[in-house]
Amino acid sequence: MTNKLPLLNCDMGESFGNWHLGMDADVMPFVDCANIACGYHASDPHVMRRTVALAATHGVRIGAHPGYPDLMGFGRRSMACSAAEVEDMILYQAGALSGICRAEGAELAYIKPHGAMYNDMAANLELLEGALRAVKTFDATLPLMVMSTADTQGQRALAEQMGVTLWFETFADRAYEANGHLASRRLEGAVHHDRATIVAQAEKLARGEALTARDGTPLILACDTLCVHGDNPESIKAVRAIRDAFDALERA
Amino acid sequence: MTNKLPLLNCDMGESFGNWHLGMDADVMPFVDCANIACGYHASDPHVMRRTVALAATHGVRIGAHPGYPDLMGFGRRSMACSAAEVEDMILYQAGALSGICRAEGAELAYIKPHGAMYNDMAANLELLEGALRAVKTFDATLPLMVMSTADTQGQRALAEQMGVTLWFETFADRAYEANGHLASRRLEGAVHHDRATIVAQAEKLARGEALTARDGTPLILACDTLCVHGDNPESIKAVRAIRDAFDALERA
Amino acid sequence: MTNKLPLLNCDMGESFGNWHLGMDADVMPFVDCANIACGYHASDPHVMRRTVALAATHGVRIGAHPGYPDLMGFGRRSMACSAAEVEDMILYQAGALSGICRAEGAELAYIKPHGAMYNDMAANLELLEGALRAVKTFDATLPLMVMSTADTQGQRALAEQMGVTLWFETFADRAYEANGHLASRRLEGAVHHDRATIVAQAEKLARGEALTARDGTPLILACDTLCVHGDNPESIKAVRAIRDAFDALERA
Amino acid sequence: MTNKLPLLNCDMGESFGNWHLGMDADVMPFVDCANIACGYHASDPHVMRRTVALAATHGVRIGAHPGYPDLMGFGRRSMACSAAEVEDMILYQAGALSGICRAEGAELAYIKPHGAMYNDMAANLELLEGALRAVKTFDATLPLMVMSTADTQGQRALAEQMGVTLWFETFADRAYEANGHLASRRLEGAVHHDRATIVAQAEKLARGEALTARDGTPLILACDTLCVHGDNPESIKAVRAIRDAFDALERA
Repeated sequence: MTNKLPLLNCDMGESFGNWHLGMDADVMPFVDCANIACGYHASDPHVMRRTVALAATHGVRIGAHPGYPDLMGFGRRSMACSAAEVEDMILYQAGALSGICRAEGAELAYIKPHGAMYNDMAANLELLEGALRAVKTFDATLPLMVMSTADTQGQRALAEQMGVTLWFETFADRAYEANGHLASRRLEGAVHHDRATIVAQAEKLARGEALTARDGTPLILACDTLCVHGDNPESIKAVRAIRDAFDALERA
Repeated sequence: MTNKLPLLNCDMGESFGNWHLGMDADVMPFVDCANIACGYHASDPHVMRRTVALAATHGVRIGAHPGYPDLMGFGRRSMACSAAEVEDMILYQAGALSGICRAEGAELAYIKPHGAMYNDMAANLELLEGALRAVKTFDATLPLMVMSTADTQGQRALAEQMGVTLWFETFADRAYEANGHLASRRLEGAVHHDRATIVAQAEKLARGEALTARDGTPLILACDTLCVHGDNPESIKAVRAIRDAFDALERA
Repeated sequence: MTNKLPLLNCDMGESFGNWHLGMDADVMPFVDCANIACGYHASDPHVMRRTVALAATHGVRIGAHPGYPDLMGFGRRSMACSAAEVEDMILYQAGALSGICRAEGAELAYIKPHGAMYNDMAANLELLEGALRAVKTFDATLPLMVMSTADTQGQRALAEQMGVTLWFETFADRAYEANGHLASRRLEGAVHHDRATIVAQAEKLARGEALTARDGTPLILACDTLCVHGDNPESIKAVRAIRDAFDALERA
Repeated sequence: MTNKLPLLNCDMGESFGNWHLGMDADVMPFVDCANIACGYHASDPHVMRRTVALAATHGVRIGAHPGYPDLMGFGRRSMACSAAEVEDMILYQAGALSGICRAEGAELAYIKPHGAMYNDMAANLELLEGALRAVKTFDATLPLMVMSTADTQGQRALAEQMGVTLWFETFADRAYEANGHLASRRLEGAVHHDRATIVAQAEKLARGEALTARDGTPLILACDTLCVHGDNPESIKAVRAIRDAFDALERA
């Protein structure tokens, strides 16, 4: 995806039954990709349907956002699942969202594992391979979104061998370690709250320029897509600012 | 389906995680249709995959068997869900099984709601309409299996209007009331345990002959498919006996 | 509870994992009784603990608020559970909250079933008996909160026979039918939104005066406790206004 | 517990809804302690009640057997829960079982975490401390069952400081590593299937004699209780044989 601007992707459809979460309707107009939860860590058939309809209305790409089966922990707690378990969980959840899509005349465009499953895949090639097997047999034309790090060679090799496209994802509001992993949220400065800082980091990532890792070293990250947030009014302002900056880059 | 023998359908894939249920491998060779649980009342992605693979090996049609979200109650407790909730639950579960099917190169052939959802649909046209909407948008070529009763006119009219095929299902091991509903299990004689009685009822249903309802009146039931059971060795013997009887009918 | 002012009770602890619901901290200072969800329709061990601690800080009575096992439906969908199932579900959930209470040096003061379970108990004496059996063996000194209606004789007789105290609950913000059941939310005027109307109804209930049912007939309701809501700022203002009105009644 | 024979403990109540697991009624007469699942990894209120009643009938001590919230994985998949989460999960589940016990006039006698939670506690003192806090506030007189290893000093110190009694558990049917951890099931010889071998290991553990670790070194393990299994007829024969051997030791 050289020379293309990164796609803005955002977690959506994270409500569940009577519980509401996220400002999906407010952020949808400004993103390219909606990562829609599939019922294991959030969402339910009704929420999924509403979210798919909203994405379709805005012409936003729909991505399956499968997670570990842990509603109580919102899929954020790592679970010691085997690669085969992860593979089948992804097939199940992507299929479920795909079933909902049919009712709205929509289609899945990519798959992005959620939370702890996403992180575990970045740390464990065996789990990544399970996810790739799922994508390959579900629909080999769908890209799999994975975390961009300083060294993506192992991931790229595996994906190429499996015939699946990877979309590397970066974050504009997070500090990075030198190895390209996100700085722990417990560290001071790990999360950027200043909008100008967030936009500047997004622009660097979009231009393929190096970020500065926490230890001061330059860090170049592949960036097919940028993760943005629709949790609160402030985060949505940041998304709009990034969108404006990208529009300016495109016109330039 | 005039002049065709009823298809033998059987609930399958009802294990869950560490819990095993059913003798799927033993009964699979003798049935035409495997109703595979989709995770709401039983099964999980791993069990679904194993069951789909088993059905595919035997060339058995794969049906989505969606239920109410009630693992603890095995989907047998009626839940006051709206038609829209039932619709989305069916889309979700059929989609999930469809996702698993892709990994095994298999395809869904029909949809049969499970347990209380199946019964509620037989008693409530609004819920049936929700199920029909789900089938119509998921894949309008898939038949929906419903309970055969003495008066199926309302169901037929609705299905025709929606453009969905109904497969009417009957039971060889159950006594019927005059209205074509199953006699309550609490009544004496409600369940046939004698294999000859079961086979005789299956043959009558296959030939389109009248059964005798509990009150002595004759009862003609549309029968596209016959429900059989793979729970225990005895029930599997009954399936084999029905299969043998049907083979004989076919040769006759 | 003659001559006593009704206790103000409010559903609390209805958050779940990452999902937040209710303004518990804001409404807690103004109520007497906190109905704390027990994990079946809402809440989790962490939320329960936080809510118990909050109630204890304010000296508010803690009630177990057990529901049907239906997180997706928030316990609002009736489920066809047997009286024995309801009994065991109440024992389980009351026990669970009791376990959490021990860690905060708190104690259960009563039990109030939630949502559809509460409504089903009001319509079905067999289910009420199941609930009473649960309370009786769990701790026969705990009152069971039930819906007050025009005719509570059957409920009273059953409770007396079982040796369990009933606390009859009424609503200040809902219109009533002549039989003392709540007017369906679908009817116009079923829910009072005007604060003065709500306070006036609360005062009548507190004084034992008749309300006017939807058909114009006078309706006297036993009222040991009044249900109030902490969902939003407006409902909390209503709670404060009722509290002020009750304080005035007490001083009078 | 010097000079006392180890108590025989067995996982029980692992059925769930329609799924049956374990031969509880067959093994109950031969054990001292029933570890009863509490609904997070197995069991439900009905199964718990039936199991508590069975244990009470046989005068068997009842232990809460809390696990991670993972029915699909039977609590065997490690989950990255914080110590505070583990603490609250134990309070919830022990409380729930305690509620069920009240209905049967029974009482909790100890707490034994299940599966992955049990293993994680053996590897992580912070999680053990969370569990100890739960036991301490729930009922400080209840012992906590933990895995016996070659070096239990850290666990003992922590428990003493918290004022909670530990019961060290060993296994008669498993090979040990030199550090007192169980040999991985993937290794040949990790699980003993020969009844005589199992009984001999049980006797050594009961007498305080050294086992031989896989690397040939002698291994002395504290043994307050011995884990036995009621999964199948063969395992129950082993339990009876151990019981007979212990009876003989006692008479000796």
